[in-house]
Amino acid sequence: MLPDHAFFTRLADAAAAETLPRFRSGLDVDNKLSGGFDPVTEGDRAAESAIRRLIEETYPDHGILGEEHGASGLDREYVWVIDPIDGTRAFISGVPVWGTLIGLYRNGRAVMGLMDQPFTGERFFADPQGGVFSGPGGPRRLKTRDCRTLDDAVLFTTSPRIMGAAALSRYDRLERKVRLARYGIDCYAYCLLASGFADLVVESDLKPYDVGALIAIIESAGGVITTWTGERPELGGEIIAAATPALHQAALAELSAA
Amino acid sequence: MLPDHAFFTRLADAAAAETLPRFRSGLDVDNKLSGGFDPVTEGDRAAESAIRRLIEETYPDHGILGEEHGASGLDREYVWVIDPIDGTRAFISGVPVWGTLIGLYRNGRAVMGLMDQPFTGERFFADPQGGVFSGPGGPRRLKTRDCRTLDDAVLFTTSPRIMGAAALSRYDRLERKVRLARYGIDCYAYCLLASGFADLVVESDLKPYDVGALIAIIESAGGVITTWTGERPELGGEIIAAATPALHQAALAELSAA
Repeated sequence: MLPDHAFFTRLADAAAAETLPRFRSGLDVDNKLSGGFDPVTEGDRAAESAIRRLIEETYPDHGILGEEHGASGLDREYVWVIDPIDGTRAFISGVPVWGTLIGLYRNGRAVMGLMDQPFTGERFFADPQGGVFSGPGGPRRLKTRDCRTLDDAVLFTTSPRIMGAAALSRYDRLERKVRLARYGIDCYAYCLLASGFADLVVESDLKPYDVGALIAIIESAGGVITTWTGERPELGGEIIAAATPALHQAALAELSAA
Repeated sequence: MLPDHAFFTRLADAAAAETLPRFRSGLDVDNKLSGGFDPVTEGDRAAESAIRRLIEETYPDHGILGEEHGASGLDREYVWVIDPIDGTRAFISGVPVWGTLIGLYRNGRAVMGLMDQPFTGERFFADPQGGVFSGPGGPRRLKTRDCRTLDDAVLFTTSPRIMGAAALSRYDRLERKVRLARYGIDCYAYCLLASGFADLVVESDLKPYDVGALIAIIESAGGVITTWTGERPELGGEIIAAATPALHQAALAELSAA
């Protein structure tokens, strides 16, 4: 049986108790990779530990894949996919567009998901019954807007400058055709798409935990999320989310052209 | 005599009454320039009208320069510099990093400023006595952090892709030397800098009302804000803000090299 909304709420509250007090504190930044810049905070680690503890207590037969503390039981029927602070660069630079991502896969397929932004008080949750936003102006059902053509579309990506050359050339062809492109907001972009304020999110090189929680959020709102070649997105990679099937097809055509 | 903090608060509240109900409403977007994409909302226009009305009632001898409704009395001792919604692209795509900017110049020099983000409840205000943040986690005095070298610096810019070729080449030289570069948050970046969460903001082609309110906010916090050639920033253009004088000098050296 699937966990309920209340259990996801407990997970998000437990994570927020670790992340929010550390946001804009100016402390605890270090580098995961020497050389590269991959910041992670104590909040990141503590939040994932808090989430894992609750899951392990309540659902000991579930598997878990987390950004910070690795994988266990990935062959189980249910597997949780967790990024305690998606958008660590936003987090360390004080911009409240990072989020806590908690997804649940069943037999490899995303079935539930939550994104929480505790500074703004925004929370996005989806299960097989649909998606809901809570926070300022809410609660509201999640619903993408009816954008079907590239020249009407608002596109988000984290940054063209983090893409490899091959991906960038395909991305750039798409960017030239849309109405407006914006950069830099990580998981928050998918939630804006599910809320009807953006139409496309296109990113390369995502890990499963970067996208796992967002799949149900996008799909519950009527959107489409796949890889750039149209495959299921659960394993990450090059990911595109679109407000409508027609827009998804139009964007895929640009991303896959030679 | 300078207006007081309470008057700025009235202006910000009047503007928020027009902007916030229209944020994420999905309505009222049109294009100011046919051909280009320069969206402006009814909220933008209504907020500036509300601000101007209060100023004209209370300070009839002051001049006003606004983004939406033009200029009057620019030769007066006091001139208000207003951008009712800075970051209209953020506004129309649902990202709460736009802001209402209200600055006051005396004899051409910025002396007071306010940035308001009503969705998150964040407000940044500066006068000759100093700068203050109110909102979640506040109130707090504004204070830049003690970052003096490029390789420690977090840099913000709206987007390298909106710069002309000459500016871009100088910007890129700087970007390669910093610790982290992030895109896309307009006026919010200057407020993060004044709060000690970012160290550099570098932008090209700003109008006076894009920067006027932010000058006092940066300077009150101990930061430095000038053009890329080190001149006063009140008239806009290519603008750089830095957390410390030493960092400002290091960044200017990159931006001005041939």
